[in-house]
Amino acid sequence: MTSEPKRPLATRVVDKMMHGDAFSQWLAIERLEEGPGHCTLRMTVRDEMVNGFLIAHGGISYALADSALAFASNGHGIKAVSIETSISHLRPVQVGDTLTAIASEDNLGRKTGVYRVEVMNQKGKLVALFKGTVFRGGEPWFPEENG
Amino acid sequence: MTSEPKRPLATRVVDKMMHGDAFSQWLAIERLEEGPGHCTLRMTVRDEMVNGFLIAHGGISYALADSALAFASNGHGIKAVSIETSISHLRPVQVGDTLTAIASEDNLGRKTGVYRVEVMNQKGKLVALFKGTVFRGGEPWFPEENG
Amino acid sequence: MTSEPKRPLATRVVDKMMHGDAFSQWLAIERLEEGPGHCTLRMTVRDEMVNGFLIAHGGISYALADSALAFASNGHGIKAVSIETSISHLRPVQVGDTLTAIASEDNLGRKTGVYRVEVMNQKGKLVALFKGTVFRGGEPWFPEENG
Amino acid sequence: MTSEPKRPLATRVVDKMMHGDAFSQWLAIERLEEGPGHCTLRMTVRDEMVNGFLIAHGGISYALADSALAFASNGHGIKAVSIETSISHLRPVQVGDTLTAIASEDNLGRKTGVYRVEVMNQKGKLVALFKGTVFRGGEPWFPEENG
Repeated sequence: MTSEPKRPLATRVVDKMMHGDAFSQWLAIERLEEGPGHCTLRMTVRDEMVNGFLIAHGGISYALADSALAFASNGHGIKAVSIETSISHLRPVQVGDTLTAIASEDNLGRKTGVYRVEVMNQKGKLVALFKGTVFRGGEPWFPEENG
Repeated sequence: MTSEPKRPLATRVVDKMMHGDAFSQWLAIERLEEGPGHCTLRMTVRDEMVNGFLIAHGGISYALADSALAFASNGHGIKAVSIETSISHLRPVQVGDTLTAIASEDNLGRKTGVYRVEVMNQKGKLVALFKGTVFRGGEPWFPEENG
Repeated sequence: MTSEPKRPLATRVVDKMMHGDAFSQWLAIERLEEGPGHCTLRMTVRDEMVNGFLIAHGGISYALADSALAFASNGHGIKAVSIETSISHLRPVQVGDTLTAIASEDNLGRKTGVYRVEVMNQKGKLVALFKGTVFRGGEPWFPEENG
Repeated sequence: MTSEPKRPLATRVVDKMMHGDAFSQWLAIERLEEGPGHCTLRMTVRDEMVNGFLIAHGGISYALADSALAFASNGHGIKAVSIETSISHLRPVQVGDTLTAIASEDNLGRKTGVYRVEVMNQKGKLVALFKGTVFRGGEPWFPEENG
């Protein structure tokens, strides 16, 4: 009897995170790619996501970028939590726009990591630029494998 | 025949903004207080707002703080848009927690403004600290009154 | 024979830090007050500190605020290093201006701390607003006292 | 009689800025390259630049990055002033280290611009990561040429 080949660590971590992540599900975030220190996500802006200017609320691009940060930084298999993040809102985002967030790792230290997330619309224009620092306490996502 | 006394400018601006702000409505944000350069908002965290760690998604506190920034900075009656914001997530937020965001003005320039938003839970503990810079282009919310 | 009463921990930490801090000495930083989680510093802007607009270089207010962050966060007696900082430059600073930096603690966690530093000129006007997050590895400044 | 060919606009702007920039001169900043929206600077850390941990003061990498921001953003020929900047200190910098700062433009809007500055040591390791937002009021560096 042959066993199924094991899926990559980052994928299994993000599966586990995404499973409980009710808000990323409400945003209807799709996973395009993930690995240790990086990931790409996509979502489409809906009517219920606008602010008082009738463009996407700043919390929407932030949430997409923050999910990308979480998946990228936890993709090493060690639990990482966001401690400080910043976002520049560069262009208005409209209902119906499709946003893609690309997270990459600028630095991975023993206790902290720094990430950049670019959020682009369907025309490839940068709509938001996010920077996030995470704290890594050392706890593995799958402790049974570290033995 | 007497006319109804006019409501304060900041209140009328926030009425107008909140009216179209579908996402703040989804968050069920309550307005506790508002004025030129300041405001206080409140909301309760629901099941659909958690992330992969089963605590409130970073996008939730961010969105609450970002709405507080928007209402406080537009409360002067001149349209203001966020250009750069940062948030530190200081304590986990649980489902059922009630969050209060207090926005205050650190600086008001001719073209920009800088705001601080403290987000606290029902025990009065600071759960997030937000800083936002807005750009003020000069366009009034009620142009008919400027004349 | 009576011994001299011991000076407060924060003061002894800052003495030790300031002793080696050649750049704070070059800035001619004066210590007005210090304690666990807070401190106040002062300096005067000199000709050699200006940028291409002939006002104080952004690095000057930043350096003053960063020293205030270092002294305030190390004042608990545990070594703390800056991991992420931001500064808003709000008003031009001129040669001859006296700057006062007041650092206060927004949050002290087990591993991290968050601080706010207000930089004011001699007229009491806010010229820069600084926010800093530090990492606390647990190493004491005076290990011989922890026994 | 032939006239000397005109040097590029960005170069003439940075010449003018660097001329008055006493602090960049104190830092002994060398210009390696500059153009509209980008520039590369280099400097070597001296004894008088250390902090209380005997490594380079955070104000040193910040100042280098802030000069790079200023030169890159003014390189379009329109005066630009920093409104909000952040820096992550990623690795300690030692006396004698040579730092290179590379500024690039993430976004150029009508009124604002967003820049990233990477600061590396002589081994090519990232020691600091800087993000800066500038305000562009519209005033040209060489008004006599715009006519």
